[in-house]
Amino acid sequence: MSNFGFPHLRVVNPFEQSWREARSAVGAAPVLADAEEFNSVAESVADCTLVVGTTASRDRELQHALKTPAEASAPIHEALGVGRVAILFGSEKRGLSNDDLSHCHWLLRIPTRAEHGSMNLGQAVAVCLYELARERDNPLAQTTLPPRAAAAELERITAILAESLIASGYTEPGAAAATEEKVRRLVRRLDLSATDAELVLGMMRKILWKLRHAGRSAGL
Amino acid sequence: MSNFGFPHLRVVNPFEQSWREARSAVGAAPVLADAEEFNSVAESVADCTLVVGTTASRDRELQHALKTPAEASAPIHEALGVGRVAILFGSEKRGLSNDDLSHCHWLLRIPTRAEHGSMNLGQAVAVCLYELARERDNPLAQTTLPPRAAAAELERITAILAESLIASGYTEPGAAAATEEKVRRLVRRLDLSATDAELVLGMMRKILWKLRHAGRSAGL
Repeated sequence: MSNFGFPHLRVVNPFEQSWREARSAVGAAPVLADAEEFNSVAESVADCTLVVGTTASRDRELQHALKTPAEASAPIHEALGVGRVAILFGSEKRGLSNDDLSHCHWLLRIPTRAEHGSMNLGQAVAVCLYELARERDNPLAQTTLPPRAAAAELERITAILAESLIASGYTEPGAAAATEEKVRRLVRRLDLSATDAELVLGMMRKILWKLRHAGRSAGL
Repeated sequence: MSNFGFPHLRVVNPFEQSWREARSAVGAAPVLADAEEFNSVAESVADCTLVVGTTASRDRELQHALKTPAEASAPIHEALGVGRVAILFGSEKRGLSNDDLSHCHWLLRIPTRAEHGSMNLGQAVAVCLYELARERDNPLAQTTLPPRAAAAELERITAILAESLIASGYTEPGAAAATEEKVRRLVRRLDLSATDAELVLGMMRKILWKLRHAGRSAGL
């Protein structure tokens, strides 16, 4: 809840001892400290204009419309524009009772494998709230790729790599032009950022220098 | 993992006692029973063509592209069309180390409140896998890229390039480990296809051989 910015926790008839001893995750203390306790589902959702139940069952509750979190997101956001919305989770073991469900406008079910439908409560809450936060203005959506290397830089890498391949004996005699073209295509496919291009150029320059220098030494 | 249909759990150097005593959620026993244990991140991802790291940090790893789960879904599904994909999670307390991150092609971050970025591990896994299952019938998933290189192949290129940089004098004395990490990250950013990886490996092998051979000749 704290991760995704949902500060209002309400609990209905919690098991006293567990509730008193409950510890929040690091950073989430305010959610637990500000939690409100109620004696019935009816009281806990009294000020809400939309009450969404959650279920692991595919077909038990045919009286209710069943939405995936993705389908639920738009109507929940709409409702949040005009009032409060409750998302109701049952206990880990038994889920929501028929009486609990009778307070719900519709139900939300996380699509899971048919063979393993029941989810851990904390994980189910995380998935539902993630989905609701997913469509909020997302600062990460503005993430941009680092600037790409200019063609001139790629051509410098191409030339030095081609020369290194000749100096190392990789390039067959007479195949210099064909190898250079192969290298040119390869270097473009790498889609280097400007920073990486500079890094690669520095490495390849040193390697070529050594190949030539060592060659000359050996030749003496 | 079991809820969303991801059966393959791999663990790297688990804390022995906790691991032996680990109990799965009801219905998820096969995931735990079939889990594979590895001694290093490199071994655990050796057969994967895409390795996605996870982080709670917004800005620590600027060397890596950072995607939301929603943005990550299409490229992960594309990669699944041609090979295996690893999603790497760190320990609950410390997350992934810089060395762990150096094995990753890019990073995934779940958008959370700035004030509470760090998530419970199980909840983070649930959110990521929910998102991947959410788009399963996504038409984008059918786009095909040439098969990417497996991590073991990238690690071979990393090793040979790192050795070449030492042999050429590029690597400062005492900086071999730092340079190798830099090279490992660079090689992952190149996003090589399997074919290009083979090509690069052939070139780098010949260059390294020459660097060493020439060095020895010069020394005689």
